[in-house]
Amino acid sequence: MQRYEATAEARANIALTKYWGNADDRLRIPANESISMTLDRTRTVTTVSFRADLKADEVVVDDRPLAGAALERVVRHLDLFRDLAGTTWRARVVSHNNFPTGAGIASSASGFAALTVACAGALGLDLSPRDLSRLARRGSGSAARSIFGGFVLLHTGPSDEDAFAEPLHGPDWWEVCDLVVVVSRSEKKTPSTAGHHLARTSPLHLARVARVAALNERLRQALAERDFATVGEIAEEDALLMHAVMMTSRPSLIYWLPETMAIIHRVRRWREEGVQAYFTIDAGPNVHVLTLPEHVDRLLTDLRADPVVQEVLLCRPGRGASLMG
Amino acid sequence: MQRYEATAEARANIALTKYWGNADDRLRIPANESISMTLDRTRTVTTVSFRADLKADEVVVDDRPLAGAALERVVRHLDLFRDLAGTTWRARVVSHNNFPTGAGIASSASGFAALTVACAGALGLDLSPRDLSRLARRGSGSAARSIFGGFVLLHTGPSDEDAFAEPLHGPDWWEVCDLVVVVSRSEKKTPSTAGHHLARTSPLHLARVARVAALNERLRQALAERDFATVGEIAEEDALLMHAVMMTSRPSLIYWLPETMAIIHRVRRWREEGVQAYFTIDAGPNVHVLTLPEHVDRLLTDLRADPVVQEVLLCRPGRGASLMG
Repeated sequence: MQRYEATAEARANIALTKYWGNADDRLRIPANESISMTLDRTRTVTTVSFRADLKADEVVVDDRPLAGAALERVVRHLDLFRDLAGTTWRARVVSHNNFPTGAGIASSASGFAALTVACAGALGLDLSPRDLSRLARRGSGSAARSIFGGFVLLHTGPSDEDAFAEPLHGPDWWEVCDLVVVVSRSEKKTPSTAGHHLARTSPLHLARVARVAALNERLRQALAERDFATVGEIAEEDALLMHAVMMTSRPSLIYWLPETMAIIHRVRRWREEGVQAYFTIDAGPNVHVLTLPEHVDRLLTDLRADPVVQEVLLCRPGRGASLMG
Repeated sequence: MQRYEATAEARANIALTKYWGNADDRLRIPANESISMTLDRTRTVTTVSFRADLKADEVVVDDRPLAGAALERVVRHLDLFRDLAGTTWRARVVSHNNFPTGAGIASSASGFAALTVACAGALGLDLSPRDLSRLARRGSGSAARSIFGGFVLLHTGPSDEDAFAEPLHGPDWWEVCDLVVVVSRSEKKTPSTAGHHLARTSPLHLARVARVAALNERLRQALAERDFATVGEIAEEDALLMHAVMMTSRPSLIYWLPETMAIIHRVRRWREEGVQAYFTIDAGPNVHVLTLPEHVDRLLTDLRADPVVQEVLLCRPGRGASLMG
């Protein structure tokens, strides 16, 4: 049986400045630039086989076949690659996440980054990392950043060509730690893709977009200078800005839970006690606590003693997406 | 002994659209117009005696003498009236709140409204309600609204003369209910007066000011039409807008506690269940639940069974400030 097959791995990332809202929904061109850190302990491994004998695309994630809108989203992504390669063959996609679903880490970034690299590898497409990042973006905006390791900037602009990711510093540049604090495993009511469409309905959206441009300038400099206080302050400010936009969009999206609020205040108390810890929060209730290696033991001790905390996952800067085997 | 004395009463109010941030800090001219409902069960009674024999102003609130910044603020207010009356006599002020301090209701609005009316009465100043509202504003912005009963608009503008309160509808216009849900009695770290100065440091402040102007237009119409869903939606949106500004100001002010978040979600679940309930939150952790009389029993039952709730105070539209006896 004829087949074109490849396996790729990719990792999730935590946005220090967030992607929230699109300038172009169809092409997933973000309304603002964002900067992230790729996370080492959040790996997705995906195998794609384009085969002549398949009648329809089949997608299995963590041993469960996808259907409905989730399947459709992957099929559209496969279509991009079929168009580039000039084939009509359907594909079988098998993907495994080594981090639990609902662990406070979206699998769409690592998932679409791994899928993108696997598709390009399977079909023998000669694409630059920049091109891969643009293609990954079509599946999930934040997936564009997971093409690269370490600290990554996702550009934006008027056209598809402008919205690519660029590595700022590799994973060895700086050992920033991200403690992923899981306070709830329940599914969020509004998935990020739907939420992005709502961003522009917030009266605060344009003010945030303008502010993030200034924050990104300062963040690039702070990363270059390894200035942790500035990185943390910016991450915390933009997390609050993004949730302000979410809460004031129509309909209003409130992702925070009581437990989220408890961790937010815990982080601020740590700082009052001289511990360098800052929070950031994605489109969900779980909290990422950014810190430096010398504070990790203290924070883990406090977090594990906290009854609102279900689990803590310690991540450091991770590598970019790559073909395997 | 010569004295000029009067006693006045006034009530607190809940802002449906908030006053947050000043166009002029010294004159307390608000950055945006706000609309409130005066609350019946939140009465302050204040007696002012201007006396020839006093060496300094004395202020006693709920049997405790004021000192420091709190005393200074009242002295400056008394100075306004001494200037108007052409006297240098010092005053003794005795004030009682019939609602517990820290019950989720600021006493500054009722306190400065009662103080204003008592001062004018004691000194025999012939001032219109509009003038009284402008003077009350100098002590506390929201006190301007407590001069009037029912539903009240606080105007703003470039000068002191522009920033006066105006009654939109009397207390009998509409029986909107405000369930004041107390989840914490601890003192807030940043008093409102300090917070107002920070509003303009938020990148979201100007976007909120622009939005509130549009919300106030719609709110006036909704109050005129007794359209509760619109009133509630606007109140909830502007509460979120104001807290978005607070959280993103420098320094960042996060007034919400885990318990606040629990009530926010409770209110949204009530609406999913068909109960007309909306939240608004002032500069603190406690939540005001706005509803209509037919839902009060249900909400009180649920709230009193909720372990995060310390106390619930049921308020309806109240009367404006007046001289007593």
